[in-house]
Amino acid sequence: MTPDYQTILDEIRDEVQPLLAQGQVADYIPRLACVPWQKFGMAVVTLDGQLYRTGDADEAFSIQSISKVYTLTLALQSIGDKLWRRVGREPSGNAFNSLVQLELEHGLPRNPFINAGALVVADVVLGAMPDPRAQLLATVRRWADNPGVQDDPEVARSEQANGFRNAALANFIRSFGNLEQAIDEVLGFYFYQCSLAMSCEDLARGFLFLANRGYCRWTGDRILSPDQAKRINALMLTCGTYDAAGDFAYHVGIPAKSGVGGGIVAVIPERLAVAVWSPALNAKGNSLAGSAALERFTTKTGLSIF
Amino acid sequence: MTPDYQTILDEIRDEVQPLLAQGQVADYIPRLACVPWQKFGMAVVTLDGQLYRTGDADEAFSIQSISKVYTLTLALQSIGDKLWRRVGREPSGNAFNSLVQLELEHGLPRNPFINAGALVVADVVLGAMPDPRAQLLATVRRWADNPGVQDDPEVARSEQANGFRNAALANFIRSFGNLEQAIDEVLGFYFYQCSLAMSCEDLARGFLFLANRGYCRWTGDRILSPDQAKRINALMLTCGTYDAAGDFAYHVGIPAKSGVGGGIVAVIPERLAVAVWSPALNAKGNSLAGSAALERFTTKTGLSIF
Amino acid sequence: MTPDYQTILDEIRDEVQPLLAQGQVADYIPRLACVPWQKFGMAVVTLDGQLYRTGDADEAFSIQSISKVYTLTLALQSIGDKLWRRVGREPSGNAFNSLVQLELEHGLPRNPFINAGALVVADVVLGAMPDPRAQLLATVRRWADNPGVQDDPEVARSEQANGFRNAALANFIRSFGNLEQAIDEVLGFYFYQCSLAMSCEDLARGFLFLANRGYCRWTGDRILSPDQAKRINALMLTCGTYDAAGDFAYHVGIPAKSGVGGGIVAVIPERLAVAVWSPALNAKGNSLAGSAALERFTTKTGLSIF
Amino acid sequence: MTPDYQTILDEIRDEVQPLLAQGQVADYIPRLACVPWQKFGMAVVTLDGQLYRTGDADEAFSIQSISKVYTLTLALQSIGDKLWRRVGREPSGNAFNSLVQLELEHGLPRNPFINAGALVVADVVLGAMPDPRAQLLATVRRWADNPGVQDDPEVARSEQANGFRNAALANFIRSFGNLEQAIDEVLGFYFYQCSLAMSCEDLARGFLFLANRGYCRWTGDRILSPDQAKRINALMLTCGTYDAAGDFAYHVGIPAKSGVGGGIVAVIPERLAVAVWSPALNAKGNSLAGSAALERFTTKTGLSIF
Repeated sequence: MTPDYQTILDEIRDEVQPLLAQGQVADYIPRLACVPWQKFGMAVVTLDGQLYRTGDADEAFSIQSISKVYTLTLALQSIGDKLWRRVGREPSGNAFNSLVQLELEHGLPRNPFINAGALVVADVVLGAMPDPRAQLLATVRRWADNPGVQDDPEVARSEQANGFRNAALANFIRSFGNLEQAIDEVLGFYFYQCSLAMSCEDLARGFLFLANRGYCRWTGDRILSPDQAKRINALMLTCGTYDAAGDFAYHVGIPAKSGVGGGIVAVIPERLAVAVWSPALNAKGNSLAGSAALERFTTKTGLSIF
Repeated sequence: MTPDYQTILDEIRDEVQPLLAQGQVADYIPRLACVPWQKFGMAVVTLDGQLYRTGDADEAFSIQSISKVYTLTLALQSIGDKLWRRVGREPSGNAFNSLVQLELEHGLPRNPFINAGALVVADVVLGAMPDPRAQLLATVRRWADNPGVQDDPEVARSEQANGFRNAALANFIRSFGNLEQAIDEVLGFYFYQCSLAMSCEDLARGFLFLANRGYCRWTGDRILSPDQAKRINALMLTCGTYDAAGDFAYHVGIPAKSGVGGGIVAVIPERLAVAVWSPALNAKGNSLAGSAALERFTTKTGLSIF
Repeated sequence: MTPDYQTILDEIRDEVQPLLAQGQVADYIPRLACVPWQKFGMAVVTLDGQLYRTGDADEAFSIQSISKVYTLTLALQSIGDKLWRRVGREPSGNAFNSLVQLELEHGLPRNPFINAGALVVADVVLGAMPDPRAQLLATVRRWADNPGVQDDPEVARSEQANGFRNAALANFIRSFGNLEQAIDEVLGFYFYQCSLAMSCEDLARGFLFLANRGYCRWTGDRILSPDQAKRINALMLTCGTYDAAGDFAYHVGIPAKSGVGGGIVAVIPERLAVAVWSPALNAKGNSLAGSAALERFTTKTGLSIF
Repeated sequence: MTPDYQTILDEIRDEVQPLLAQGQVADYIPRLACVPWQKFGMAVVTLDGQLYRTGDADEAFSIQSISKVYTLTLALQSIGDKLWRRVGREPSGNAFNSLVQLELEHGLPRNPFINAGALVVADVVLGAMPDPRAQLLATVRRWADNPGVQDDPEVARSEQANGFRNAALANFIRSFGNLEQAIDEVLGFYFYQCSLAMSCEDLARGFLFLANRGYCRWTGDRILSPDQAKRINALMLTCGTYDAAGDFAYHVGIPAKSGVGGGIVAVIPERLAVAVWSPALNAKGNSLAGSAALERFTTKTGLSIF
């Protein structure tokens, strides 16, 4: 029996209201800091293309690290499993460890969703495309079935101006020989991908291919093989929500990728993609109300992969 | 359509033969070192209780860390979610990190499947039961539907005699106040649980409750709530195969727990439990041929949670 | 020109009064916790055997880690430079690192003055002596020219009862094969050595041999070769005051060893030994007023090795 | 009695010949890689200005990290003890730790002689001088009493082109707010200071002020206060020879600073400065034959600070 998604989404929107003011909106760049914490949106797209939505589901926000799934997809399209010679597939533990492990593991980032790994993935994408920014944007628009998706140059500029830690990572990885393109190019592209602005509707549509064995419902393209799609889902489950991946798997139980802009997008294989947005973050850097909303969603629908 | 499990198991048994001699049989205690690397067994038990088996599936081996799922289950039965005040639910990164993180995180082990976490779980079980060894053995026999399951005192003795690192962990955790029972008791119980000897058949039967929303098919008992069962599955996926959990999720894609004796048991929720045994281990400490067998199993059956 | 040591000591005693209440008396065992923070003593013994003293210089206190210099001396007497195959000579950085480095460096402690290193030294002493406790006590009495030096069994008992971290270290080192005696023996001896009670006078007399090229003024014995004495002084300078050795060298500028009982003993080669006691410790675990007193002592006397 | 320095230097030159071919010439930049390993020079300058020399003592080589003592001196002249708010004075343990500790200690480098600390010192110097490169060069020439000292632009260029790890450190420190000048400026100045070329004679003359209570014999200037000079000596002893400072203090027993170009300069307070050069390095990055030469020098002269 199909759950009544619309009723469920509306219930969740009401239930999470008290949570919106908890948590902390990211404030390391002005553009993120000024997003009102009252925002909440959620959207579901099922395999048959049906859309359900509630709240601010059509308002675009900064997708930030959610973009790492897109660049990983592009990198796999370009060089396939050779990617795994340059980046691992293991959870990284806390932020402290990512740097320590980079040292212990000689510049091989633990997975493509920590910043170090995303920089290597960006390096791969840069090496494979003549005009990577334009191609990334065009691709994301197609997959999300929305030609109106934009990047936000102001966000990219601010990230760049404050991106000392990412610059440290890039130089560190380069010192081990695991970056091939110019460091400034890699960082520039990375800050660009993080600056893409999408709505919950865009993201739910744009991640549906991962629930759909790699096929894009909107274009009919085979984006990835069924196996590759499954494996990205596995990676999102084990590494998609920073150092809270274990907890997230425990409480929510479905593959997901979060961003510091307050978005989380999740996938229930063979069923649906679901995106949620609430700007205030918990201590681990994931949307506080968004995490709660997804936990309620799996409880109310009875859907889970476990 | 139900896959033809028997044919699939027999195919896998033939296909993995060349892998058996690869890897390295654990040799830190004599009893494990003398197990012939040629051994290979595999067993599937489906939700309706049907058993399929191949090779040495009825030969008992040392389950070692697989026992951590049983003690975790007992601890959750005893104190429920209060357990999570004393142990986390996050992957731990490499072995090196487990100690570093224990220090950084003030004696709170990252998850119940690293040794540090299993010692805390053992401490909980000890505090909850008058005769924990006898009760653990009786419980495991019931859940596996086999009153013949035994412990191996020689293994426990050897582990104890070589268990300096576990003794270091226990003392270290105690120094943070996160052990309540006498250290020697905790270690003794821990070495006892690791010394249980079970066959693939035993393990497939004995883990079926995790595929069956917490109900034990053999006794009719509700071992755990559906939610708790789901969550143990999530923990096995993110933390069940040491520092290869990410890779294992990527390649095999189902919750699993491995042991240094060469056993791995995995769960496909709402479908089946599957156990495999091959003594030689890969560099991460998981059965080399066993991992390959499970990857083939999910490929051939098309079953996966992603 | 010889400085007027008596006047200088009395000045220092007056000047440090306001510092005595600062810092924190060690409270992890009751016997140390109940020592009055008002205590202050200081004693100087010059190469010609002249004694100068002020305040509570004749009151015995728990020497704790200061004993590590004595056991190091005994170990060098027993096995000479072979000791350095089992323990290093490098500063260890902060406490956090001692454990990390023990892991990275495969059970070889960084130096004999961190607890890990002192446990290895204790293991060497145990292996070299039929009755190590009695021999240590007799030796310390001879070197300090005071047959009344005692151990404090109550301190040793308390340390043992709270010594989980040291037990963790001992087991950890043993797991790398770098302890030869029974772990309980090693720990017992280590807690014994820490429980020795000596006064500032005892310590100043008892360390004079390090200022005197290895010769004991009181017995006429050659305790160490001139070279060995120099090298222990070098070790005290680089590693003698926990993670404050750099700061201590910077501010005080002479070799010293501190203990958590509030004692510090220092050596000015070819000149004198000086001991100070004030129970309240600074954040790095060294006597707060004691450190200040020694800095004043080098300033007022103009003595320094730099 | 004054040792016969000339005879001692000549003896040492002969004795270390078999060691010259051991060790490894630094090869991360071409200019260093092509220096002949056969080179060996040594020079002593005593407090009265007398010079003794042997071998290639008048041949200029790349001073590399030895320059860190000069920039530290300039920084102390500029801002005095305020420097210590931005950099520590503790040994750092191994190279691995420098990065870990930078993270744990929030961007405060452990001491001014690890690269992280030298970058902060460079930042201070840059902020204090209108034309820092010219002023550094002029200063070094004055202190070394040799207007012919030059920098080597080719070395600086190569360092810059390979300086990813230093760039990582600079960005990392900047992410904690502990750099004030533009990162490229800081790195450029740092690579410049490392590229200074000096002979053993230059260095022995140029470090004499540290043996001479801060006074420059050649110019009559008071470069540092006696206290500041003593404290730089203490820092060199505890932190001057990378992760071998403990060993170096143990074997050689005098304050020293080494560079990857094969130079080591050491100070015996109130006596002399001594410089040695041999390009091949030991595993810790210090000149192999140079370390041996200094150990022999202290043994033969009987000079030591301990």
